[in-house]
Amino acid sequence: MRKVFQAELQTIGEELINLSKLVAEAMERAYESFANADTQLAQEVIAADARIDFLQNKLDEHAIDVLALQGPVASDLRMIVGSLRMSASLERMGDLARHIAQLTRLRFPNQVAPESVQPTFAEMARLNIEIATKVGQLLDTRDLAIAAEIIGLNKEIDELHSSVFKAIASDDWAESAPTTTDVTLASRYMERFGDHGVSVARKVNYLVTGEWEPNLNDNV
Amino acid sequence: MRKVFQAELQTIGEELINLSKLVAEAMERAYESFANADTQLAQEVIAADARIDFLQNKLDEHAIDVLALQGPVASDLRMIVGSLRMSASLERMGDLARHIAQLTRLRFPNQVAPESVQPTFAEMARLNIEIATKVGQLLDTRDLAIAAEIIGLNKEIDELHSSVFKAIASDDWAESAPTTTDVTLASRYMERFGDHGVSVARKVNYLVTGEWEPNLNDNV
Repeated sequence: MRKVFQAELQTIGEELINLSKLVAEAMERAYESFANADTQLAQEVIAADARIDFLQNKLDEHAIDVLALQGPVASDLRMIVGSLRMSASLERMGDLARHIAQLTRLRFPNQVAPESVQPTFAEMARLNIEIATKVGQLLDTRDLAIAAEIIGLNKEIDELHSSVFKAIASDDWAESAPTTTDVTLASRYMERFGDHGVSVARKVNYLVTGEWEPNLNDNV
Repeated sequence: MRKVFQAELQTIGEELINLSKLVAEAMERAYESFANADTQLAQEVIAADARIDFLQNKLDEHAIDVLALQGPVASDLRMIVGSLRMSASLERMGDLARHIAQLTRLRFPNQVAPESVQPTFAEMARLNIEIATKVGQLLDTRDLAIAAEIIGLNKEIDELHSSVFKAIASDDWAESAPTTTDVTLASRYMERFGDHGVSVARKVNYLVTGEWEPNLNDNV
């Protein structure tokens, strides 16, 4: 029974790692479409999100089967319940990448963001891709140093997100109101993507150490 | 055993209903602070969100205990796992109400939204309070007609959310860029609040009927 359970847990872990890869790829491609006003690529990102949703659903069904058939308790049970939470965060990261692609498609043939904030978005995207990649590594290795790195990367994103609002509030900002709205939303999507990566990192940290820091939760 | 389980399930159901009441109240007070630039009330909403987070955590611990001690299967198991999902949606609704209060505090003594869109926000708030209230009724009665009503109310919110963007894009819009950003975010928070209400409604619908409509999910 225990052996079967460990094998099931291993498979669920692999499904989570697979989701994190798809989500990193979604952010990479969504940002590429956003930066280049590439509506074809945006369309592909939007279509690909259905697969992430499907795989999340499959993972969750799998986790529920394990709960039903193995009746795990203690840390094993927390691991399975934690997987359900992490898959929800990863699925949401896919949604947020899709939202960025949808903004791209909406504004085509124009770019969503004006030149002045393009470097900020490039950096937010880079950090988010790194977060999603590190989430996969963390799930694979359980090396908690990676969890700390993810939290650090997300702080950088939060600062960039604030800097977008500062740019919007500056006298130099001469963009149209709809552009201001698009930039606000795109920055918010980037920020939330990182937050969900942190949620997964904190969950792994909790599952490994048994310690939860509610005040440091993704309380944003 | 079965009797104990039913009692536990009843308690978890009551905890969810209690959360939905707190969330309805959070939206009501957050909107009141937003409409009246009442920073004192905003501060109370922000502080009260910690209680929602605490109660969600307590509910989840309770649900995990039930999984460990009762080892439910089939529909009972799905009910418990569904509770974990619903509590996450309700907790998030609390966060979104808090975000609206935080915008209020940030812009005090000014109002967040200009006069022209105040009626739209009033209506979004009214619909969201109704959604949160109906979520409580749905959890209590399992009357699926209420789930359909919630989905209908959320469609109205989506339309109002779109109308805010139309207002921003119109020639009449003469607000500053930071105001445009605030209005965009506030409208987004309102829209997401409703989406999470729909998530709970769909989950109850699924638990009662066993039928899931993935394409009608809160895929927004």
